[in-house]
Amino acid sequence: MSDDHNGPALRTALAYHRAWTSGDLDGAMAYVADDVFWRTPGEDLTGKDAYRDFLGGFLRVFTGSTDVAAFGDQEQALLCYYPHTDVTGTAPAAEHLTIRDGQIVENLLVFDRLSFAPPQA
Amino acid sequence: MSDDHNGPALRTALAYHRAWTSGDLDGAMAYVADDVFWRTPGEDLTGKDAYRDFLGGFLRVFTGSTDVAAFGDQEQALLCYYPHTDVTGTAPAAEHLTIRDGQIVENLLVFDRLSFAPPQA
Repeated sequence: MSDDHNGPALRTALAYHRAWTSGDLDGAMAYVADDVFWRTPGEDLTGKDAYRDFLGGFLRVFTGSTDVAAFGDQEQALLCYYPHTDVTGTAPAAEHLTIRDGQIVENLLVFDRLSFAPPQA
Repeated sequence: MSDDHNGPALRTALAYHRAWTSGDLDGAMAYVADDVFWRTPGEDLTGKDAYRDFLGGFLRVFTGSTDVAAFGDQEQALLCYYPHTDVTGTAPAAEHLTIRDGQIVENLLVFDRLSFAPPQA
């Protein structure tokens, strides 16, 4: 994503985003605080282990990403992109990240679970 | 939402957002272009009539909104907020708006349909 709308939180958010969307789970997790709160659709997760499990699980079906927009300021960043899986590449996702001391302390993740569900037999 | 991260697209986006979240459907539609494209979860809509039908339908169950963040620049805005219904007030939504000449020409709307579905009997 573009660095045009820059701020320290956005720089961290984009580094995190580039890491996980290139499949680098360890690199991504380096930006995640130990006591992170992650609001995912239908489930609130707390702590780095739960975060890693969820992100790692998604990476098993993730095939790529198309960036839409990225903004940020001193302490927050807001990203919009299309995650690709074998099911869809046209359902957008968004993340609102709260970042302190270079670490993600909160992530509000928005996507439509139904759009990513495997087709029913 | 805050005007801190300002730009002409964000000003239009926030005016639109304030209109519909206060129940002013006509006021909101004044910011929507005739040939608008609206990507909603599971359905792409084209044209102002389809846009109005969808937004008006949501307003029938909408009870309020909590702002999270809003950013924008010359031609795009990105909003994150919690829409409230009788079902949930803790499932975030996001909108990526493309704005030309003060009119919304494209809206990518992200929310999790399952989080807003009525509980199953």
